[in-house]
Amino acid sequence: MTAFAHKISARDGAARLGQLTTAHGVIDTPTFMPVGTVGTVKAMTPDAVRGTGAQMILGNTYHLMLRPGAERVDRLGGLHKFMDWPGPILTDSGGFQVMSLAKLRKMTEQGVEFQSHLDGSSHMLTPERSVEIQRLLDATVTMAFDECTPFPATEIEAAASMRLSMRWAQRCRDSFVARPGYGLFGIQQGSVYPDLRAESAAALAAIGFDGYAVGGLAVGEGQETMFGVLDHAVPLLPEDRPRYLMGVGRPLDIVGAVQRGIDMFDCVIPTRSGRTGQGFTRRGTVNIRNARHLDDPRPLDEACACPACAKFSRAYLHHLFRAEEILGAMLLTWHNLHYYQDLMRGIRSAISERRLAQFASEAAALEAQGDIDPV
Amino acid sequence: MTAFAHKISARDGAARLGQLTTAHGVIDTPTFMPVGTVGTVKAMTPDAVRGTGAQMILGNTYHLMLRPGAERVDRLGGLHKFMDWPGPILTDSGGFQVMSLAKLRKMTEQGVEFQSHLDGSSHMLTPERSVEIQRLLDATVTMAFDECTPFPATEIEAAASMRLSMRWAQRCRDSFVARPGYGLFGIQQGSVYPDLRAESAAALAAIGFDGYAVGGLAVGEGQETMFGVLDHAVPLLPEDRPRYLMGVGRPLDIVGAVQRGIDMFDCVIPTRSGRTGQGFTRRGTVNIRNARHLDDPRPLDEACACPACAKFSRAYLHHLFRAEEILGAMLLTWHNLHYYQDLMRGIRSAISERRLAQFASEAAALEAQGDIDPV
Repeated sequence: MTAFAHKISARDGAARLGQLTTAHGVIDTPTFMPVGTVGTVKAMTPDAVRGTGAQMILGNTYHLMLRPGAERVDRLGGLHKFMDWPGPILTDSGGFQVMSLAKLRKMTEQGVEFQSHLDGSSHMLTPERSVEIQRLLDATVTMAFDECTPFPATEIEAAASMRLSMRWAQRCRDSFVARPGYGLFGIQQGSVYPDLRAESAAALAAIGFDGYAVGGLAVGEGQETMFGVLDHAVPLLPEDRPRYLMGVGRPLDIVGAVQRGIDMFDCVIPTRSGRTGQGFTRRGTVNIRNARHLDDPRPLDEACACPACAKFSRAYLHHLFRAEEILGAMLLTWHNLHYYQDLMRGIRSAISERRLAQFASEAAALEAQGDIDPV
Repeated sequence: MTAFAHKISARDGAARLGQLTTAHGVIDTPTFMPVGTVGTVKAMTPDAVRGTGAQMILGNTYHLMLRPGAERVDRLGGLHKFMDWPGPILTDSGGFQVMSLAKLRKMTEQGVEFQSHLDGSSHMLTPERSVEIQRLLDATVTMAFDECTPFPATEIEAAASMRLSMRWAQRCRDSFVARPGYGLFGIQQGSVYPDLRAESAAALAAIGFDGYAVGGLAVGEGQETMFGVLDHAVPLLPEDRPRYLMGVGRPLDIVGAVQRGIDMFDCVIPTRSGRTGQGFTRRGTVNIRNARHLDDPRPLDEACACPACAKFSRAYLHHLFRAEEILGAMLLTWHNLHYYQDLMRGIRSAISERRLAQFASEAAALEAQGDIDPV
């Protein structure tokens, strides 16, 4: 018995259209999860996030364990209640952030000892503690605690790192308490090395997880290399379970990964870009701070129905960013998250109509044209 | 013929319940106008502002003339369209900000020459230019350009300042182009001196305005002194026109001013406090950053129906402010504006039921009790 039903209703090449049924609701896949690092999708109300069409969000174990603390979130009724997101939440394991954000790290077979980047306090993350924290947060999907293998890594380094993650994956499985509609995902590692990806996939399948993530990508290797790894790595994962590509990505990264069989995505790009003035459109990104928008009465994206595009001009958005007004970050984040959900809706329609390759080439051609000024 | 109909439907002592009909909609008075300094009520969408019950907002001539520029706003269809606020907008004249924010000011009979606090560029504000800017912004209510007399001022200083403002008031009236549903308000000055307040009121009434503001208060004189001035100054203003107390204030300031015959208010306090972690409740303000809220599952204000109080705990709001998350500023601003509109709804009900004195004493008693911790 598995924790989740993942029902596939259509296929187009390796791409799958599906529904994942969880304790907190049903997710249409392929899905994009906005990132809510410390219990908030930055600059958005939960109602606004829902309004974009997002069905599932991501929370960060590393950030939440430090502040407000997992035991505190548990006492307050769990992360869903705390942040008013009754829908599904996937939490990462903390493995990535502890290596990229924390100070004075010491990694052993047991786990990672580190100092908080906030106040220097000492903490220990182990596979067992990571799973416990995610249970305290009431995560719908718990991610196995692993080491995100740095890029580039030699094959020897990548093998040692991956095998440590596989031993940790077993410890995560052993300590995870199964509940209906809740699940634990394993994470495939192995860097760019096909044999290691295969070994990792086999190790995870032998342990048995409710879903499988492809880890160690989107770390600077570039789209071509990433797609190359996915071509080989994704077919190694169990066919009947959801597949999650962590930390990806830009719109065409997502389209290409769906074509290679990925069902789930998360990325900070739409939210972070929204706060720095980068807006996504079908013709690529637009830097709304650029002076050419000063007098432009058009919406950011003529094809978008989000509140930012329905009600405001580029000139207004430009003004908000120049004046450093919070509403600028709010509106552009809203637009970008809406854009990403529009993209996922488009992808799902294309799969159901078996025209994903056409969808992908049209999206690439339009993005290559770039933004145009008013006539 | 006057530009606005101001229909008084009930009275309670000097307090008036009314409706002001403008080109952009009907306002229930007494009213509180949230401040949208540079074309946005900070950290709020216009929909959210409307949702609190706000019917009219304020924009700032000084800020908007510098960025994005009045001519630009006009080309883009006016401030209502630019910022998606189709309702009434009152714009200040720039007189206050040019003295408090701009650099290297030179004031003459003609007007004020100054350098922008943003980029050092040189500008001139005169009564005629201020009125023109407000017309370009498409302000529903244009405020006369005046000098906000500093506090304290000697009677001689206050007289000279007030008489300059009265000469400027005449020039504003002369250059203002009347349109149905649009109006021009004069501003009474005279500091704390009864004779000067009377002279100013008579000068304004002789010119004839569509509404009358009490200026030069809320500049550090304290509530007792302010109420003392209002006791004398408000009855001097034409009875049939709306009366506006500029830049006021805290909740009990507003209640007391309504009891003295004021119909309109604006103040940055609810929005600014919302961004710095101060939340308004019937029991006074709460500093949500205080550690005593760390584990408090209660809403900020049990009696409030705003989204922040309906959906989130003090513990969550505290967390957002500690983590410096934008959503903290968004939710607390939302609450504070909702709180202020609740206050105005309460005041209007009390006037209609002739129990404003009771309302005022109950509000004062509750605020004096202070916030209570959970049992």
